[in-house]
Amino acid sequence: MTKPNEHLVDWLRDAYAIEKQAESMLKAQSSRLEHYPELRQRIDQHLEETLCQQALLEGCLDRLGSSPSAMKDLTGRIAAFGQAVGGMTMTDEVVRGAMRGYVFEQAELASYTALIAAARAVGDAKAVQCCEQMLPQELEMGRWLLDYLPDIVAAYMSRSADGRDDAKR
Amino acid sequence: MTKPNEHLVDWLRDAYAIEKQAESMLKAQSSRLEHYPELRQRIDQHLEETLCQQALLEGCLDRLGSSPSAMKDLTGRIAAFGQAVGGMTMTDEVVRGAMRGYVFEQAELASYTALIAAARAVGDAKAVQCCEQMLPQELEMGRWLLDYLPDIVAAYMSRSADGRDDAKR
Repeated sequence: MTKPNEHLVDWLRDAYAIEKQAESMLKAQSSRLEHYPELRQRIDQHLEETLCQQALLEGCLDRLGSSPSAMKDLTGRIAAFGQAVGGMTMTDEVVRGAMRGYVFEQAELASYTALIAAARAVGDAKAVQCCEQMLPQELEMGRWLLDYLPDIVAAYMSRSADGRDDAKR
Repeated sequence: MTKPNEHLVDWLRDAYAIEKQAESMLKAQSSRLEHYPELRQRIDQHLEETLCQQALLEGCLDRLGSSPSAMKDLTGRIAAFGQAVGGMTMTDEVVRGAMRGYVFEQAELASYTALIAAARAVGDAKAVQCCEQMLPQELEMGRWLLDYLPDIVAAYMSRSADGRDDAKR
């Protein structure tokens, strides 16, 4: 038997861990991208959104008497997830990076969708509002990445076929 | 310098590895789910689609003179990805399982989106057609899972709060 509030707190912590990992991933991608300026710009924009989302989640957790600490296990799992979706050392780094970013956004979207339902179930209007504020940002970033992915693939393949230095990242 | 065709083959192999892992995940979920019949039914439906997708990808790879073998590294990475998104041992298994399924579908969606662009770039109409056939199945499964996720969360929380045995899976 678990109190509904405990689930809400658990899943808020999960969401926070995902956003921390997203921050690492976005920072790494932004610092490495040199020849795909549009992608880098969109990543930088979402990095700012991600930092705001972390603050919102911290506020929710704080209000519910919890904190983002004690999540070593989860953070490890999420880091493995990031690595699994696409390694940075690969020659097609830009393509895999964009796919990884998209998949990450979708994990966040699923997370906030579940959290909104959980917050509604316990009648926590503030948590509902908090998650409803973040969800469209994930949706937009995900949509942007998926829309832009064919262009990235085409550019990468063309540059790579010509042996150009600006193909990889 | 990499020939465009090589990228297409690489990414088709990735897609195959993802579908193999999806098969394992869907089978495991279906065999464990007892008290969420609608979710189980949808998973079983998508399992059949997944097996057809594997055959389509094998056909593409075969036609391009390649095969789905020699993918140990990737399979390991993808397996880690499955584990990372949500472990089955957790009490909120049904919620994490649905989220994991959704994220998997999105990885497949991104994969086919990239593959369609890659196949177009090399002028491989058969591969384009093959991926365009699979993409809507991932889209539909993903949409279904995301739409149904709030119901799963609400049912799980309510059953869990009552200490019911049918909460977890």
